[in-house]
Amino acid sequence: MDFLTLSYSSNNHFKYQQIYEGIKENVLRGNLRAREKLPSKRQLAKELNVSINTIANAYDQLLAEGYIYTIERKGYFVESGTEFHTQGATLNQLPADLKETDVNKEDWVSLSHMSADISLFPFKEWMKCENKAVDNHKKELSELGHPQGPYKTRKTISRMIALSRGVVCEPEQIVIGAGSQLLIQQLMSIQDKKQIIAVENPGYSRFYRLLNKMGFYVKPIELDDKGIDIKEVASSKANYLFVTPSHQFPTGKIMPISRRIELLNWAVEEEGRYIVEDDYDSEFKYESDSIPSLQSLDRNQRVIYTGTFSKTLLPGTRISYMVLPPDLLREYRKHATDIMQFSNSLGLFTLHYFIENGSYSRHIKRMNHHYEMKRRLLIDQLYSKFKQEVYIEDIPAGLHFLARFKSDKTYEEVETKAKEEKLEIYTMRRFMLKEKKRMNNWIELVIGFANIDEEEIPEALDRLDRVIR
Amino acid sequence: MDFLTLSYSSNNHFKYQQIYEGIKENVLRGNLRAREKLPSKRQLAKELNVSINTIANAYDQLLAEGYIYTIERKGYFVESGTEFHTQGATLNQLPADLKETDVNKEDWVSLSHMSADISLFPFKEWMKCENKAVDNHKKELSELGHPQGPYKTRKTISRMIALSRGVVCEPEQIVIGAGSQLLIQQLMSIQDKKQIIAVENPGYSRFYRLLNKMGFYVKPIELDDKGIDIKEVASSKANYLFVTPSHQFPTGKIMPISRRIELLNWAVEEEGRYIVEDDYDSEFKYESDSIPSLQSLDRNQRVIYTGTFSKTLLPGTRISYMVLPPDLLREYRKHATDIMQFSNSLGLFTLHYFIENGSYSRHIKRMNHHYEMKRRLLIDQLYSKFKQEVYIEDIPAGLHFLARFKSDKTYEEVETKAKEEKLEIYTMRRFMLKEKKRMNNWIELVIGFANIDEEEIPEALDRLDRVIR
Repeated sequence: MDFLTLSYSSNNHFKYQQIYEGIKENVLRGNLRAREKLPSKRQLAKELNVSINTIANAYDQLLAEGYIYTIERKGYFVESGTEFHTQGATLNQLPADLKETDVNKEDWVSLSHMSADISLFPFKEWMKCENKAVDNHKKELSELGHPQGPYKTRKTISRMIALSRGVVCEPEQIVIGAGSQLLIQQLMSIQDKKQIIAVENPGYSRFYRLLNKMGFYVKPIELDDKGIDIKEVASSKANYLFVTPSHQFPTGKIMPISRRIELLNWAVEEEGRYIVEDDYDSEFKYESDSIPSLQSLDRNQRVIYTGTFSKTLLPGTRISYMVLPPDLLREYRKHATDIMQFSNSLGLFTLHYFIENGSYSRHIKRMNHHYEMKRRLLIDQLYSKFKQEVYIEDIPAGLHFLARFKSDKTYEEVETKAKEEKLEIYTMRRFMLKEKKRMNNWIELVIGFANIDEEEIPEALDRLDRVIR
Repeated sequence: MDFLTLSYSSNNHFKYQQIYEGIKENVLRGNLRAREKLPSKRQLAKELNVSINTIANAYDQLLAEGYIYTIERKGYFVESGTEFHTQGATLNQLPADLKETDVNKEDWVSLSHMSADISLFPFKEWMKCENKAVDNHKKELSELGHPQGPYKTRKTISRMIALSRGVVCEPEQIVIGAGSQLLIQQLMSIQDKKQIIAVENPGYSRFYRLLNKMGFYVKPIELDDKGIDIKEVASSKANYLFVTPSHQFPTGKIMPISRRIELLNWAVEEEGRYIVEDDYDSEFKYESDSIPSLQSLDRNQRVIYTGTFSKTLLPGTRISYMVLPPDLLREYRKHATDIMQFSNSLGLFTLHYFIENGSYSRHIKRMNHHYEMKRRLLIDQLYSKFKQEVYIEDIPAGLHFLARFKSDKTYEEVETKAKEEKLEIYTMRRFMLKEKKRMNNWIELVIGFANIDEEEIPEALDRLDRVIR
């Protein structure tokens, strides 16, 4: 039978046989293509941890049988003519529509709100903390940890958000997870499907689809100048409310204290009402002090506070957390056997030391200056280029802002053209949870400034100009 | 208003005020308890990245107002008598039932199947690879990556499993995720809820509950001496079949080639039948060569192959993958906007280099020797201690085995007693998906040997003796 079964075992004859069979099978199935270069003997030997001789024997046999050929000083290649000589009808050749075209993003310019500038990230400090985590937590790292994440890290986070956001909680109330989306999914999966959930419109469409898919009735609510329309919330019969008061996503508005208090008052009017406060980028505030989090104002344990490290560490860090009020925590614990921690445990211990030794707050402080500089530069250049044809919601917070441009194009046209121009940017269409009348001759774009270099801005705006005109 | 709103902003007066207010509020709410030690001025200053003077001012004010007291050379402490003087009715004090009792696991002994021995893990090599990942992938690390994981890492995995397990696939077919559970959830969430799923009994109860909860009809199928009962599968009307052929979980049986072929034949009898092959610990095979994976034998693209790095790297690594046949991949891609990568991106690039430079296969080779030595030692000592009163399924694979002990106790009694004895061990009860008649006077335990030290074995067996007698 022709299949490749190299196990990491002891018998040398089998190893040679297995490598030989494996490559042959892959050639026959077309998985290794005609003229494709094989790894060098030295490299494959290293990778498989066998002797070079073993590989040499396998390659020699394949040469002898005509599956591969060799070019001096260049290496070994797959013979052509072998490619389609397969013995079965439905071998594993990947249909063309599923092939990934390797998008070379090198010459793209990004105005995405989802990126971060990691050029100043203190990788050395991070790795020092990682070393410390390894030295101090060998036992914990050899086991599956607490489903909510290590107590030590939860304690550090609870102290940090107490000081930075006024969030009052015990480490027990913190649930760490590999992203806000997963945490919300965990939280809502223990809820009765009869819940009605009010969300901001425009808003975070990924959450909207997730909750819909989970079987909840999700009601998009319009925003007024203070944020989510409290009257509409009241008449929606919702008992869950998802909001982004620190920096509304995507419009960037900061919810004033009066509306915050109205929301909290709404929550206590009836039993079982909860507010999910998504504080996704509150670390970045320019010029102004923060308005207190809803959770810090709440005297009735109706707020679920969520935060993330995706904006402050690396976008692919996958560490977020939520703070559960005691009643919900009790419910959550009942499902403990089905809950797992999906965040990397070494990363969680590393984070503990990174916060504890002050690296985290130093990094945030530095990034605040850096991002505010970029934000100002981008806004100034937008105004000087587009003049009367642009209006910017200039709110000194977060990593993105909303801008309106004079344009007769549809959102679809803008999106297609942006791809052609290799400009990564998102239009309001992505965040509209239900059809909204568009302002005449104006389009709205969500502009992220985190991952654009100062020198790239003129080029980005040239592309933007061609995209919207 | 009393809340703590320290933002990382510029105004020094506010900072002092915020720290003062924050600590005061936490004292009043009972969140900082009477006689609890506050962080030193130096430490808090470092953590918050403010001057020591700022902290000193805040502490002085709190001292003056009687919220805290100081003991020379010892530091600052919360005054007693402040603890319950709260101003609201329902402040955030955590109810006693939700408090985590800090289980000191130091004096526990573990025979858990979920742990790993990380004492030989080449952390230095891993960190070298991490450095390389940082140096070479700055751009990718500043963005949200491909939902299936970086192409580079998928390519490395696809080559590795081709050589080690005969799995034939393109990198496009690989979906990386933060655990097999999440991947299965993603895969099944795009399936029609009318699917009937056959699973092994005993088997992986977490998957069983997950699939049940997702709304599928899940049918536990008994095992015979070759593995899952093919006749029962055939009569179950299932179209999805979940199996662990390399090392049945938890019995440890290796499915012979004849049963594998029967399963594959079952899959092609009707359209839309799929087999999910969970190859969760196939890296560890002692004495014998591997039997080829189902996927490598499959000529009809009906097998979804899944693997994990939890057993070979660290249990909390959270990197798993599945290989989708083209038809399912096409379905999966349709939901791409709702799919995110939940594995840490830096870890995924690190893994790429770790495999490529041969560290991974070297580590597995070393661990195979190490684990086999432990396994033999443990089995020998079990036999010499329990003699006729133990029967062990001695299958040279994986990180656990099944053992039967003479005992009149119920599983509940054994589990309670194991906790008392501080012995981490799992009984068959955890893996029985439906009630099964128990063998008279025998109990079955799943014994993991990965995380027990050689010198600990006699103590572990003494405890085990007390647990089951």
